[in-house]
Amino acid sequence: MSTSQHSNLRDGQMSLGMNILGFGAHSGAWRQAEVHANAYLDVDYYRNIARISERGCLDAIFLADGPALAGDVSKHPGGRLEPTVLLTAVALATQRIGVIATASSTYNDPFNIARRFASLDHISGGRAAWNVVTNAGDAAAQNFGLAGAPLHVDRYARADEFLDVALKLWDSWEDDAIIGDARSGHFADPRKVHSIDFVGQHFSVKGPLNVPRSPQGRPVLVQAGSSEGGKALGSRYADAIFTTQTTLEDGQQFYREMKARAAGWGRNPEYLKIMPGLSTVIGSTEAEAHARFDALNAWHGEHGLLEQVAGRIGIPAKELDPDAPLPWERIGAVAEFERGSQGFLEAQLNLARRENLSIRQLSRRILVGHRLLVGTPEQVADTLSHWYLAHAADGFNIMPDMFPSGVEIFVDEVVPLLQRRGLFRHEYTGSTLREHLGLPFPTNQYALRA
Amino acid sequence: MSTSQHSNLRDGQMSLGMNILGFGAHSGAWRQAEVHANAYLDVDYYRNIARISERGCLDAIFLADGPALAGDVSKHPGGRLEPTVLLTAVALATQRIGVIATASSTYNDPFNIARRFASLDHISGGRAAWNVVTNAGDAAAQNFGLAGAPLHVDRYARADEFLDVALKLWDSWEDDAIIGDARSGHFADPRKVHSIDFVGQHFSVKGPLNVPRSPQGRPVLVQAGSSEGGKALGSRYADAIFTTQTTLEDGQQFYREMKARAAGWGRNPEYLKIMPGLSTVIGSTEAEAHARFDALNAWHGEHGLLEQVAGRIGIPAKELDPDAPLPWERIGAVAEFERGSQGFLEAQLNLARRENLSIRQLSRRILVGHRLLVGTPEQVADTLSHWYLAHAADGFNIMPDMFPSGVEIFVDEVVPLLQRRGLFRHEYTGSTLREHLGLPFPTNQYALRA
Repeated sequence: MSTSQHSNLRDGQMSLGMNILGFGAHSGAWRQAEVHANAYLDVDYYRNIARISERGCLDAIFLADGPALAGDVSKHPGGRLEPTVLLTAVALATQRIGVIATASSTYNDPFNIARRFASLDHISGGRAAWNVVTNAGDAAAQNFGLAGAPLHVDRYARADEFLDVALKLWDSWEDDAIIGDARSGHFADPRKVHSIDFVGQHFSVKGPLNVPRSPQGRPVLVQAGSSEGGKALGSRYADAIFTTQTTLEDGQQFYREMKARAAGWGRNPEYLKIMPGLSTVIGSTEAEAHARFDALNAWHGEHGLLEQVAGRIGIPAKELDPDAPLPWERIGAVAEFERGSQGFLEAQLNLARRENLSIRQLSRRILVGHRLLVGTPEQVADTLSHWYLAHAADGFNIMPDMFPSGVEIFVDEVVPLLQRRGLFRHEYTGSTLREHLGLPFPTNQYALRA
Repeated sequence: MSTSQHSNLRDGQMSLGMNILGFGAHSGAWRQAEVHANAYLDVDYYRNIARISERGCLDAIFLADGPALAGDVSKHPGGRLEPTVLLTAVALATQRIGVIATASSTYNDPFNIARRFASLDHISGGRAAWNVVTNAGDAAAQNFGLAGAPLHVDRYARADEFLDVALKLWDSWEDDAIIGDARSGHFADPRKVHSIDFVGQHFSVKGPLNVPRSPQGRPVLVQAGSSEGGKALGSRYADAIFTTQTTLEDGQQFYREMKARAAGWGRNPEYLKIMPGLSTVIGSTEAEAHARFDALNAWHGEHGLLEQVAGRIGIPAKELDPDAPLPWERIGAVAEFERGSQGFLEAQLNLARRENLSIRQLSRRILVGHRLLVGTPEQVADTLSHWYLAHAADGFNIMPDMFPSGVEIFVDEVVPLLQRRGLFRHEYTGSTLREHLGLPFPTNQYALRA
């Protein structure tokens, strides 16, 4: 397909986010020792990745998060710096790239979150986004006075109300509320600074926010849940959806569904950006890519790969035959709380079913729950182009195997191919994340009617 | 007194914090328009003040805070950027100076706060401090689902338990928990990463923290309450006390009391630093200083000064005779909730009583509730030296009238005088805030006994 054909198929260009998951998406990354084992606690590590990403004109960098120590710290780096403060540091080491921080709607108060993200939006000059998560899992709950996580339905009901409150707080100062006339002494027009007087099932919040309206109007909202609750929440409130989709068909179906849901809320579906994750292991040749993958796998053996399948389906690895298909009959019987996230599980099952994969084959096609591509820059560019042009994605959340080499290869080798095909910008055309993503400035719900 | 006499009287040197209160401590500062009326939302404004302060080798910059919009936004700049994210930005624009962020123990969860400050401590290379406040006032409460603020006693009981939890979380990774051996795959020693399993009246927190131990061991703790609850809390947990003291005698008495209280908790009293606030209006001559003060006062007339007295005692300004003493008999009858903070009220009453001041005289001796000095650099240096040498203070929280000129004058004119007298450093000798303040590295409560 020629470049002109490509660029005629869709208006605009794809969005690209760089997901900084510790040392990289591959659990062996820290052992390759491209950086020191303490690097994940060092702001310079993140600033370096962000600057490389910005060199490639990427839309944003992204930090996942959860308020609990996860994993076995004897074997893997544990803990993470809190994303809003870390991304403040990163924003100030960059000029254009957006910063997407994850924070929990279950274990925070809306006033605090609305304020912190509005502050980050001010400090970054309009580059802040909040990835809203509700945090399944008991470990987080037990750090906040609960024996276990609230029910899924309750977490999402709270999240819905949380976002309603946050949006009202972000709108509580109208765009032109500040007069700022030192001579006359008029600071703000009090008719344009609103109490929100919210009283709901979960929250009562008077407002107004104690931060005036931020450069983007409000921070960009990202949502990542693929359950029914997650899809309802995301299609209603989010500007971008991070999702795990492992086959083109599933990606297209999810894309169609979410756009339709957005329209159902009275929204313009164009302004809900669908961004599946893609894990990458890139080499100049296929052989090089597979050698890189093998080197990473060598640290934990093939067992590490099989473990990720076992963990998602909730059946111990030692009870699985790697060369057999998934034990479909047993999977249905596993209780929900023994499995990983619903979206990750389904994406994995769909891939195995559609391509009739053995467990071993499946284990080499996913990484941290997302579709994995081991291959050349051309192959990565091809799959990104294909999904984008086939309306399975508006953009992608890129999860390189290992930092910093993984982001360097992506920016230096994949991005130019996308640019040549007319699918990605050559330079930033806007200054805010909202502009990078092609989203309009939001209308203020309290704005006075003329 | 000669320099040698001065420096012999006390070991060590005084500590100096720079309190960035919006456009300055004087409510007329924004109207003088040294900077644009939106400057308080601009990170560059704060970075500039921090860099000037660092040029003077000050210990820290400080940001007060509360989670509610305060004051009349039609007349005064309203709202503030959230301190932990703002001070992350400031820390990365500086190399040595500490950053003290205020956050509420009443309207936050300990896991979130412990984590955010540990992250800031990592990101700043050991320069983070948390100023713990409990937030009197109903406006904050109404942003968090409450009709009004919890009772004083309940706020402080919660704060006490909050700090106990936070200290455990900060200690939950021992200093040498991380092995970080990529070759063998040993990341951390799991015996040195501790659940805290805290169950109390207000909080149940399992832990461990999901941030390894930070460069200062834990962030420096600052506390500012002068009530009985505040003094008990501060003397038990704090590394530094910010206080309002308006007369030397009261300052000395508070100093003695707090040192004794610290000793009563089994602490070394030297490691509890007492830092009263001092508001400054500085000119090269007394006449210049008073002209500067008059220019600021002109924006709101004398009425603005009288209002600050009226507000603290809870009696409308129009019912007060500026040339009479305080109406002592009425003050006693004013209900507690109509007054300002107990510490600020008492400091003001003590000053009026000790020096037998009229309301007008009193109104010109305090600013934002703190002792005000309008005078020359020599006079400011004299009063700082005097209080320091007379054991009324280990250091000071400086609150200039207006930024940036107020911090420039202090750093360029007052600091050199203190340096010449041997009372203040000529250059930083440590790299962490704890080192600047002369505090030891904290022992980890979970450290394995040999």
